[in-house]
Amino acid sequence: MTAPAALPLFCLPVRVYWEDTDAGGVVFYANYLKYFERARTEWLRQAGIGQQTLKETEGAIFVVAEATVKYLQPARLDDAIEVSVLSAVASRASLQVQQQARRGTGPSSSLLCEASIHIACVDHTTFRPRRIPSDVLDRLLP
Amino acid sequence: MTAPAALPLFCLPVRVYWEDTDAGGVVFYANYLKYFERARTEWLRQAGIGQQTLKETEGAIFVVAEATVKYLQPARLDDAIEVSVLSAVASRASLQVQQQARRGTGPSSSLLCEASIHIACVDHTTFRPRRIPSDVLDRLLP
Amino acid sequence: MTAPAALPLFCLPVRVYWEDTDAGGVVFYANYLKYFERARTEWLRQAGIGQQTLKETEGAIFVVAEATVKYLQPARLDDAIEVSVLSAVASRASLQVQQQARRGTGPSSSLLCEASIHIACVDHTTFRPRRIPSDVLDRLLP
Amino acid sequence: MTAPAALPLFCLPVRVYWEDTDAGGVVFYANYLKYFERARTEWLRQAGIGQQTLKETEGAIFVVAEATVKYLQPARLDDAIEVSVLSAVASRASLQVQQQARRGTGPSSSLLCEASIHIACVDHTTFRPRRIPSDVLDRLLP
Repeated sequence: MTAPAALPLFCLPVRVYWEDTDAGGVVFYANYLKYFERARTEWLRQAGIGQQTLKETEGAIFVVAEATVKYLQPARLDDAIEVSVLSAVASRASLQVQQQARRGTGPSSSLLCEASIHIACVDHTTFRPRRIPSDVLDRLLP
Repeated sequence: MTAPAALPLFCLPVRVYWEDTDAGGVVFYANYLKYFERARTEWLRQAGIGQQTLKETEGAIFVVAEATVKYLQPARLDDAIEVSVLSAVASRASLQVQQQARRGTGPSSSLLCEASIHIACVDHTTFRPRRIPSDVLDRLLP
Repeated sequence: MTAPAALPLFCLPVRVYWEDTDAGGVVFYANYLKYFERARTEWLRQAGIGQQTLKETEGAIFVVAEATVKYLQPARLDDAIEVSVLSAVASRASLQVQQQARRGTGPSSSLLCEASIHIACVDHTTFRPRRIPSDVLDRLLP
Repeated sequence: MTAPAALPLFCLPVRVYWEDTDAGGVVFYANYLKYFERARTEWLRQAGIGQQTLKETEGAIFVVAEATVKYLQPARLDDAIEVSVLSAVASRASLQVQQQARRGTGPSSSLLCEASIHIACVDHTTFRPRRIPSDVLDRLLP
């Protein structure tokens, strides 16, 4: 889970607001999972994949099956954060996504949090695993 | 919106956790709406009204149409709070509920936040106003 | 609390993510208060007022004393929302701010939620009311 | 991360409210981290460790350094969940905690989510690692 040399697939700028912080003065640990979800959603949207549409037309939704999150430095109110999708590997029914949150941009940015997220495609009513629709999968493959 | 002499209809003890606080060291203002919603849900449950059941059997859900919230004193991490439904007036398609959040219990408790919440009964797909199912209304009337 | 003809003071685009929605399929009512807070923070930032700086240099923070919120239409996953500060009236120790959340932009946009927010300036440790620092007040006055 | 035969160290009943769910109809994945945090806080409190006191008297706070979370089954509105601390191993400056969230209680309960959480003790201003105060450590050791 170290920063790869390659460019991230997608980057979403996120600002830290009061809602994100806790009484420790820093971003509450669960809220990085919100940031990572936002970045995954925008990355999918950029690839032409709308999750509301996916649910309505295919009855499929993506759910997180496992998340490993490392917290390296705290973020504070007003911090400007870059939340990225570093890489993603798609198989027939799941996705493995590497993500980071960094304060600032470029070489002087500092790594705040990184995550490895395993995502399953499931039926939206039964939550049973199912194949990723082929046109969606095509958009996810390199 | 002052504290009535009468006993509340329902009281839910709530503890302040890290998730509820912000970098000001106090409970974030939006989170009182979560506390109030929890208390309304438990008050309904105590009256034999399950919202998941209501949705599945009647296609009806309760939504907030208007909320007026006054913030009087801040709450902090570890505070023990009593969240109450002071009074509720039901009409055919809506509810007007008075709620309070107090630190501590009894005469020495201090008022943190109070709210007047107007709730509408709507169809769960169209979100159009509809009558409260009669058996539900019967349980809500005094 | 109707939409004024005048242009808003500030507009923040906000996207609806999974974190914002609830099992009713729409944005949870408390989360509009998060949207409104984000817009107020960015409006202050644009006026050269940083809240972290204000706390550190002046020991002052802005807290919400009262909020009146009207919910008109539900927002759903993936909706693009404009959250605005319509108007703000500053006095020596408080601010009265009118805000809206609209789906879409321009004349065809639809009003989702509007709020009138009373904000007090308080000491960051005692939470007692205090004057808004004069240089901050200068930036808030028209 | 399988369920041990031994009794959990601590169990906190948690109810699923609207605030916890998302438009998928289930508990949003980040919110299990809130549930786990609540259970850790109550487990510490039961051991005589108050985190607000710890911060004020020792300048120490516990922060999550790493979390691994497995999501096995979704939870829905109104579900009654047991959130437990299964085991905890303390060293001089950190804690390793195993946690579970189960629907229902006893042998017929079903595992929803489990987590392995690495917690560091840090200085509350610098966020640099520091020793757990000895009286706190004594209360954490078996």
